[in-house]
Amino acid sequence: MNSIDIINKTKRRQPLSADEITWLVNEYTAGNVPDYQMSVWLMAVCLNGLTDQETVSLTAAMRDTGDILDLSGIGGITADKHSTGGVGDKTSLIIGPAAAACGLNVPKMSGRGLGHTGGTIDKLESISGYRTELPFEEFEAVVKQTGFSIISQSGNLCPADKKIYALRNATGTVDSIPLICASIMSKKLALNADCILLDVKYGSGAFMKTREEARKLADLMEKVGTAAGKKCRALVTDMNTPLGKNVGNALEVKEAVEILRNKTKGKLYDLCIELTANMLELAGKGTLQECAELAEDAIASGKALEVFRRTIELHGGDPRIADDVSLLPQAKYSYEIKAAADIRITAVNSEEIGMTSLLLGAGRTEKDGEIDMSAGIVMNCECGEHLAAGDTIMTLYSSAVSDFSSAALRALNAVSFTEIS
Amino acid sequence: MNSIDIINKTKRRQPLSADEITWLVNEYTAGNVPDYQMSVWLMAVCLNGLTDQETVSLTAAMRDTGDILDLSGIGGITADKHSTGGVGDKTSLIIGPAAAACGLNVPKMSGRGLGHTGGTIDKLESISGYRTELPFEEFEAVVKQTGFSIISQSGNLCPADKKIYALRNATGTVDSIPLICASIMSKKLALNADCILLDVKYGSGAFMKTREEARKLADLMEKVGTAAGKKCRALVTDMNTPLGKNVGNALEVKEAVEILRNKTKGKLYDLCIELTANMLELAGKGTLQECAELAEDAIASGKALEVFRRTIELHGGDPRIADDVSLLPQAKYSYEIKAAADIRITAVNSEEIGMTSLLLGAGRTEKDGEIDMSAGIVMNCECGEHLAAGDTIMTLYSSAVSDFSSAALRALNAVSFTEIS
Repeated sequence: MNSIDIINKTKRRQPLSADEITWLVNEYTAGNVPDYQMSVWLMAVCLNGLTDQETVSLTAAMRDTGDILDLSGIGGITADKHSTGGVGDKTSLIIGPAAAACGLNVPKMSGRGLGHTGGTIDKLESISGYRTELPFEEFEAVVKQTGFSIISQSGNLCPADKKIYALRNATGTVDSIPLICASIMSKKLALNADCILLDVKYGSGAFMKTREEARKLADLMEKVGTAAGKKCRALVTDMNTPLGKNVGNALEVKEAVEILRNKTKGKLYDLCIELTANMLELAGKGTLQECAELAEDAIASGKALEVFRRTIELHGGDPRIADDVSLLPQAKYSYEIKAAADIRITAVNSEEIGMTSLLLGAGRTEKDGEIDMSAGIVMNCECGEHLAAGDTIMTLYSSAVSDFSSAALRALNAVSFTEIS
Repeated sequence: MNSIDIINKTKRRQPLSADEITWLVNEYTAGNVPDYQMSVWLMAVCLNGLTDQETVSLTAAMRDTGDILDLSGIGGITADKHSTGGVGDKTSLIIGPAAAACGLNVPKMSGRGLGHTGGTIDKLESISGYRTELPFEEFEAVVKQTGFSIISQSGNLCPADKKIYALRNATGTVDSIPLICASIMSKKLALNADCILLDVKYGSGAFMKTREEARKLADLMEKVGTAAGKKCRALVTDMNTPLGKNVGNALEVKEAVEILRNKTKGKLYDLCIELTANMLELAGKGTLQECAELAEDAIASGKALEVFRRTIELHGGDPRIADDVSLLPQAKYSYEIKAAADIRITAVNSEEIGMTSLLLGAGRTEKDGEIDMSAGIVMNCECGEHLAAGDTIMTLYSSAVSDFSSAALRALNAVSFTEIS
């Protein structure tokens, strides 16, 4: 086998065999196929696509370049969850504890923030002392005790994905549904939980801009997961407006705690119940309706909060934040944006809200950059709501920036409204 | 400007500006854009194409990375000729002298053989002493004296093309009409003759397999040449069967001499007259009919042969080969393939004839490999001809190989025939 023949086949829309795909992935990972040939193949995939079977083969080949976890020591049913990323998406911090409170084991690995989207690992690191890197045995022990743990992606999982992702990023070959699918699913299959629930976001704050694209990616991921012997389901959910009211690391942990303390309802709560219910149903815990009731009860009873508290403690974090969110990092500076007239909110651009939050210090403008854990935005309105003149539209927070003028302008431009006469 | 934006535009079929294309070509040539980004752009071009205007810009940008020759010192009308390559194509050795005998100045740069196709420079080097590398001043002086000179591509002409061609070869991105056009035309425009005649070959022995593809390439090259201010014409000609009877370096020089000595007619002669007539008409020497008569007269009168003889002499070669072809390298071994019955030839696969000639030593199986100047094949038949049992179909020649069994088998397989009862 050789790269040129493989490139030519994809260029001519002739399907590759599993052996050919495995050869390409292994030889590239080993450094025997150069970047300039792999990148050409990735562009051919971007433009000509892959068949579903080729995507199944690509995902398996990428998974097999590294370790595959053995979760059998945890016992029971293991479940994993993945969101394609968005603005204000703190659902993992709620769904994990809720599903664990209902008897599932949720061992999860997450990533850091990328561009305008937040990362669950960054959010957890806003909790004083929380260790996001645990050896596998300790990770396993936490899940055995509480049913839930989140650590950062570590060890030798999918080295092919790391190398291919960096190349895609440097060559304009990111936006391909088969390549996105293989990148996500190879890591999910290497983690190796019994059930995989996927939350594919679409809209201004998401990688997939339309519901149709998101549905295609969701269908493909379900096929790939099922072909690998997993119980796998992919929901498609809206990310045109930020998820919940808080954007930024400590602010999002605070909002998750408020949900777990059963103090806040609304769209974020509803989505968390829906996702938890689907995960429970996938694991055979009842009908979707029954599973939704189990999820609501897990939160209302305080059991989910207790899972969260104990998990933080076992990770070395300060468990008191589950009862007192004022112990989370607090911003030195804040700035309220107020309505100048009576208005009705018609749209909130979540990508722009994410970018503003990043500029306030909540994200990285360069790889390995420092994060201001206290920074971010609290929205005081949702799309469709009315505000009176003088009401707060949103509050900006930062410990690094005291001059909010440019951030406030950008944030205000992210909100569309009409004056009410 | 940056490579990713440029890659994304071509990926999305959004035309690039001349500035963007120039930036990409210059930065790649300078080593500031890495191979893995350039190769991705080349694949996007292979799959999505370029507009004609983009191809014009690409060609000009590639031309401008190196020197552009100033031929004004030669005086008169300068004309250049290019064939896209084939098997047994020795037309440059005939057309150049014939056009020069009619008053044009033909300063030409040629390449070496590539795969199964021969190179004019290799053919000329079969003439003892002929120097294919001359400084520009000497090249100019030869053309001023005889009207004709061929040297190898040298100096700092189109460095971008050298680098891009090597990358295309290593990444399966050779077969793109805009990229082929830009590669050929950038070199033609850097040579900078007033008139450019292009001979685009199609068929089994050519890069373009169908007449339609060849016509597309021809049209595009004419547009690009004309846009650059040249008188430019591209003919589309058949390369399904070898051009003439001889394939191999010294054997092809021999056949060219026989044509110039007015001893051989047939398809090769007819094509040479057609190409020379088109070149003369492009240069304003009369109607196509008048120019064809001028070309025939140049050969019949011996004037073209005299140009050839004097040019060889000025290049340091042995001019006596123009009168006595037995002074060309002679093969040590030969092998005649004879008809076993009365047959009619129905097809000759020129790619396979070229490959057999290469295996006999006439071409390179690796870059910078040695060539056996005496090696090759002389066909004793054309498509449609009848041969009696015992007649010679072709003769194989080599100084390196004395066992012809495998070459004879391959050569015979290249010829299709039916027995006549």
